[in-house]
Amino acid sequence: MIYGTVTLVGLGLIASSIIHAAKRGGLAGEIRGYDLSDEARATAREIGLGDVICDSLAEAVSGADLVILAVPVGAMGQVAEEIAPHLKPGAVLSDTGSVKGAVVRAVEPHLPEGVHFIPAHPLAGTEHSGPRAGFAELFDNRWCLLVPAGETDPQALAGLRAFWEGMGAHVEEMDPEHHDLVLAVTSHTPHLIAYTMVGVADDLRRVTDSEVIKYSAAGFRDFTRIAASDPTMWRDVFLSNKEATLTILQRFTEELFRLQRAIRRDDGDLLFDYFTRTRAIRRGIIEAGQDTDAPDFGRGTTRK
Amino acid sequence: MIYGTVTLVGLGLIASSIIHAAKRGGLAGEIRGYDLSDEARATAREIGLGDVICDSLAEAVSGADLVILAVPVGAMGQVAEEIAPHLKPGAVLSDTGSVKGAVVRAVEPHLPEGVHFIPAHPLAGTEHSGPRAGFAELFDNRWCLLVPAGETDPQALAGLRAFWEGMGAHVEEMDPEHHDLVLAVTSHTPHLIAYTMVGVADDLRRVTDSEVIKYSAAGFRDFTRIAASDPTMWRDVFLSNKEATLTILQRFTEELFRLQRAIRRDDGDLLFDYFTRTRAIRRGIIEAGQDTDAPDFGRGTTRK
Repeated sequence: MIYGTVTLVGLGLIASSIIHAAKRGGLAGEIRGYDLSDEARATAREIGLGDVICDSLAEAVSGADLVILAVPVGAMGQVAEEIAPHLKPGAVLSDTGSVKGAVVRAVEPHLPEGVHFIPAHPLAGTEHSGPRAGFAELFDNRWCLLVPAGETDPQALAGLRAFWEGMGAHVEEMDPEHHDLVLAVTSHTPHLIAYTMVGVADDLRRVTDSEVIKYSAAGFRDFTRIAASDPTMWRDVFLSNKEATLTILQRFTEELFRLQRAIRRDDGDLLFDYFTRTRAIRRGIIEAGQDTDAPDFGRGTTRK
Repeated sequence: MIYGTVTLVGLGLIASSIIHAAKRGGLAGEIRGYDLSDEARATAREIGLGDVICDSLAEAVSGADLVILAVPVGAMGQVAEEIAPHLKPGAVLSDTGSVKGAVVRAVEPHLPEGVHFIPAHPLAGTEHSGPRAGFAELFDNRWCLLVPAGETDPQALAGLRAFWEGMGAHVEEMDPEHHDLVLAVTSHTPHLIAYTMVGVADDLRRVTDSEVIKYSAAGFRDFTRIAASDPTMWRDVFLSNKEATLTILQRFTEELFRLQRAIRRDDGDLLFDYFTRTRAIRRGIIEAGQDTDAPDFGRGTTRK
């Protein structure tokens, strides 16, 4: 047991998976849950999620040793403000948002003295949502990034690390600014680009949608996969990781113009060298065990 | 049997698969092969590929009823010039290149009277190459596009269609210009964009390659997959389908700037609407049976 009482705020896929995984690992004495939605709370009770489903935020977090905010990034500030008076001294407050700088800026102003705030981001998910979507294995062999903002109590940090490792995750630490840049490269910009390419195909008058769909296996299909992600979540990601996304987008545009110019000027050598270099990164991913022939698009457990 | 004698020029993955598939279907009386490389010809003989492996182009194509050029797009013109004097009147000449306008422009000037030229493009492949890479199932349930340039003898066209259908493919016809635009959207531009994104990640000084690789499952990984394709082939594709690729790239850039502007101006509604629209295309692909939960990236047989 790592924490006496753990509280999940928001009862979606990530929170319900944390509840199952913490139970499986015997990591908490008591697990409480709260969700703004009456329906989500009723469902959670019906399926016996956690030990107690509370009807108020205050009740849910009072006396808890670890409180995890698993709500949309845009809602973090308001929730932090509401729970602040009820957090016990020495408690650890964490979250599961995809963007970290914006969460730190939203939560820190409300943080009471003596509460340890350690933002976190588990790199895991499925296309399903809600209290029924969770399962204990979601974090097995996936990364969880701990993103402490400034000075953080080493013992509080070690406890949260042990909690995530107990749920099967590999844990790394980085600062919020770096986190947001790394995710802008590995996730946010690729998503925006995939959305754009799919949008172009849809909008084209001279090529029909049915042609795009029929011949999608030639490459386009891989883009549609990531462009099918949840619109609300991705809108929030781009609005809250604006700076890093725009920085990477600008680099992307520069590079794209370089290749476009090479095509226009018949510079085959530049294209060949560029395409040869990008192969090495792909090999690195295969060698690092981050992909197999049965890819799961960030949703499964293909990592060794 | 559809043709008495079929000749494959070039003995790579596509040609060797055609040989296996034509044998399986009993589509040819005799199958001949030729490759510029001594090693490829020796390997082909060693594994018993086809009925005869010839040591000269003239010998290979003389008297053949169907000649298929399965060489790089950049080499089509020269091969056509060499074989032209040896083609028999009434023969069908075809190819398997990824770009069609450039192939038509390269081949047509050399075409002798009485030979039916019908360009083709099977949408199939694997990451392997050479005479040993071929297998009879490569075209099963995949598309093969027949791309006649101008007036084409209906009987010659029907014969080639039956040949590809006999190898398991679904056949569609379109004109060369439209083919190159459709492929620019569904394949060429997505590949260029994936190459670019992987190049940006590799080039970034503030995010290490090992970070990009570790956290690639968050979306980036899907890009590296298509950015690992053969550099020579893709250089030739972009140089020979220049106009259509540049047209689609320009549309892509416009759209990307629109989304970039929306991020900069906090226009969440535009982003949400855009991301909602792109989901529909993804659904269309799933419904059309062009993808499953076990994707194969254009290399397998997931189509229903």
